[in-house]
Amino acid sequence: MEAQFDLTSKVIAIIGGTGKEGTGLAYRWTRAGIKVIIGSRKLEKAQKAVDDLMNLAGNHIDVSGMENAEAARLADIVVLTVPYEAHKVTLESIKAEMSGKIFIDVSVPIAPPKVTRVQMPPAGSALQEAKQILGPEVKVASAFQNVSYTRLLKDEDVGCDILVCGEGRETRDLVLGLVEMMGLVGWDAGPIENSMVVEGLTSILIGINKRFKVEGSGIRITNVNREQAE
Amino acid sequence: MEAQFDLTSKVIAIIGGTGKEGTGLAYRWTRAGIKVIIGSRKLEKAQKAVDDLMNLAGNHIDVSGMENAEAARLADIVVLTVPYEAHKVTLESIKAEMSGKIFIDVSVPIAPPKVTRVQMPPAGSALQEAKQILGPEVKVASAFQNVSYTRLLKDEDVGCDILVCGEGRETRDLVLGLVEMMGLVGWDAGPIENSMVVEGLTSILIGINKRFKVEGSGIRITNVNREQAE
Repeated sequence: MEAQFDLTSKVIAIIGGTGKEGTGLAYRWTRAGIKVIIGSRKLEKAQKAVDDLMNLAGNHIDVSGMENAEAARLADIVVLTVPYEAHKVTLESIKAEMSGKIFIDVSVPIAPPKVTRVQMPPAGSALQEAKQILGPEVKVASAFQNVSYTRLLKDEDVGCDILVCGEGRETRDLVLGLVEMMGLVGWDAGPIENSMVVEGLTSILIGINKRFKVEGSGIRITNVNREQAE
Repeated sequence: MEAQFDLTSKVIAIIGGTGKEGTGLAYRWTRAGIKVIIGSRKLEKAQKAVDDLMNLAGNHIDVSGMENAEAARLADIVVLTVPYEAHKVTLESIKAEMSGKIFIDVSVPIAPPKVTRVQMPPAGSALQEAKQILGPEVKVASAFQNVSYTRLLKDEDVGCDILVCGEGRETRDLVLGLVEMMGLVGWDAGPIENSMVVEGLTSILIGINKRFKVEGSGIRITNVNREQAE
């Protein structure tokens, strides 16, 4: 697809970005030339994550560390990567800064110890729950639930595709552009009601990881011309 | 995996088996040497489907046509392939014949016209709805929701994998054995609560089919040794 958005001028905040998945996403985006702010509940943790990322990706990348709400305030696109038990409370803590922005949920409603059993919240999925909290002023999407951070941190093919759900085709296409800039293959997976499928797939893949003793099983879309993917 | 079950001695009934998906499954199973009964609400329709299948697969296959309840009564394994609007009523019509049998649901709760939007029933998924109707005496599973019948009818690689959800690992392994006999690659996708993911994936794949003007997009599991699949 032709790039429809000037994504390199956007600022991405990764809320709860000091964890493994957040680090993997930040690594790919900063190396693609996008400015990233890593958010954390504590400034020191965010700054530590910035130092670690620079050690991995090089000092030339454009990354800074802030508290979550400040990170959200200064960003155009806000990505959430927190353990599911912190999903609601973190969304509430950034809600006031979110009007007019794009939100990308990476959360999976996994309930230990039964991590291989799909369990969706009453809203239907983590993404629909986020939409309920963030309200009509925020365009929401979900992505990256099925790719392992270890593969994001390697400069090679991750071996799996990214399914993008979201509000409206324009929102999904913007996220698909971000996926492409990371060197990944993404597919339009439809409206937010479909996110339960992509989130739940994570539990199925964890089950396959366990049964076959592998680390990062994933999925690819087949029987379609992959050159068409975005 | 070693074959744990003597599947060639089993009889499979395909309820609502005169449709395209049922024909595709019957084609693969009969050619693998399994006895198949095609069930329909009307005996004549079932017998017509048997004639059509013999034209496709050859007269040597072991296939017969019956009304749905009779087909279920004579089978060890009962497979349901009806449009979702007939899901409950068809299950009620065979319920009395199901005790002690294995049930495989191929149904997808698609609600036209919004076929690309995931919409699960109150039970959580078609499979969980089937379990509620069939009760504790029937072991239930789901599979084959994401493979197109046109690919089943060709003697070549279908280009996609089969995800199998079901009650207990023994039930899933039996279904995985049936998948393998058809020349397909199947994966253990966990308990029946996970079926919403596999059923809903169908809507996402229909959306990809539409956006990219292809017919049978599917998925494959990646980043795992595919030789381990069953």
